[in-house]
Amino acid sequence: MIDVSNLMAPTANIYSLVRGSSEGQTPLNAFDNALLNAGVGDTNLMRMSSILPPDAQQHDIADLDLPAGGFLPLAYAAIDSKRPGTVIASAVAVGIPEDDEAPGVIMEFEDEDELLTVEQKARQMVVNAFESRNRELKEIKSIGIDHKVKECASAFAGVVLWYE
Amino acid sequence: MIDVSNLMAPTANIYSLVRGSSEGQTPLNAFDNALLNAGVGDTNLMRMSSILPPDAQQHDIADLDLPAGGFLPLAYAAIDSKRPGTVIASAVAVGIPEDDEAPGVIMEFEDEDELLTVEQKARQMVVNAFESRNRELKEIKSIGIDHKVKECASAFAGVVLWYE
Amino acid sequence: MIDVSNLMAPTANIYSLVRGSSEGQTPLNAFDNALLNAGVGDTNLMRMSSILPPDAQQHDIADLDLPAGGFLPLAYAAIDSKRPGTVIASAVAVGIPEDDEAPGVIMEFEDEDELLTVEQKARQMVVNAFESRNRELKEIKSIGIDHKVKECASAFAGVVLWYE
Repeated sequence: MIDVSNLMAPTANIYSLVRGSSEGQTPLNAFDNALLNAGVGDTNLMRMSSILPPDAQQHDIADLDLPAGGFLPLAYAAIDSKRPGTVIASAVAVGIPEDDEAPGVIMEFEDEDELLTVEQKARQMVVNAFESRNRELKEIKSIGIDHKVKECASAFAGVVLWYE
Repeated sequence: MIDVSNLMAPTANIYSLVRGSSEGQTPLNAFDNALLNAGVGDTNLMRMSSILPPDAQQHDIADLDLPAGGFLPLAYAAIDSKRPGTVIASAVAVGIPEDDEAPGVIMEFEDEDELLTVEQKARQMVVNAFESRNRELKEIKSIGIDHKVKECASAFAGVVLWYE
Repeated sequence: MIDVSNLMAPTANIYSLVRGSSEGQTPLNAFDNALLNAGVGDTNLMRMSSILPPDAQQHDIADLDLPAGGFLPLAYAAIDSKRPGTVIASAVAVGIPEDDEAPGVIMEFEDEDELLTVEQKARQMVVNAFESRNRELKEIKSIGIDHKVKECASAFAGVVLWYE
């Protein structure tokens, strides 16, 4: 049994798949706008790599009561481009194990490509990660977005970990 | 009302603008020296992206009682260079909203350029971010530093979030 | 005296040196496999930069009761390559101060080179960091790994901070 008072932070027990894309005046503004589009634009993203806690439950991001300016742990893919006409895409995939006491795995991928290809790659990476662990895979959930660049754009997809 | 026991960490309520630059034997040593110069060199920086919690109050970094080796959440810009004679600069800008129950936005920018140009760009990015949010901007605070590289140098500017 | 209720997270009091390398179907799968090889593959890495809290004690990673999917603060070096035959290496070095009330410094280095060279460089960076602080250095501990790429590989070394 883990004593939660001895951790940096309690382990999350819910997760949410989010995505967004946008143009912006600079790459960072485009990223900021993509985060707003994804529903996480007024929080402090803390990037992590990339495990789903055992038995975590999925929620819609709109149902989470995210504190403005609060610290939001998440795994994400992001890409930006200033080349008009380029297609950019980000996707994340979450592997859920058969054994609900085992952790799942999150994989992120981004590329100058269509969403279909990028999301498929993220899903395949989850399959690989479960094979590496000899862990039986029950289901893969994934989300992503692509965007044809007008002037300067960002595409973002992530898995937020949170608490209920 | 947010139940703070259900967060990864409590939302910060104070912030501090910091900056530093230095030479160093390697890029990482130069960065480490720039952090010492900025007053945050003996803490564990945890990078985040990049919102000012509502009604957070500004303090001087010297007035914060930072624990040695403690975890310090911050947004930052950093750049290093090994090309003698190059000017490098980092800046951060914080937009404070008219509505003190709304969050602010932090923007970071770094480039091989003079501070004036780099800091102005970070400030403009804050203006853009407030327009994206349809949020009225009361004030922009910014800080930055530039450095002419002798052999190997780093320039750093950040917004530390903390607690009182 | 620091009031720990006023921190983002309590300051860690133990640390563990870890390393791993692996092939994988993609760079991210190779990294994931290297983390599994290092004993931290089912946790959420939160990267930080890079101080050892005062008087922290060293433990073997196998002795830490890491929660699956929990947040794991650490400093690390990582490198991947898809060029068969290339040697890649990552190393971390930890400087322990003479004064056990002072913090130590962690340095990370990775390169396409043999471990001996890469680890030596990380150790030298610790010497530099202590000179910058005018702090007396008692001892340097280091760990690393190199790997000759077959198809697509990652080499990882890190210092985990944790609690007891």
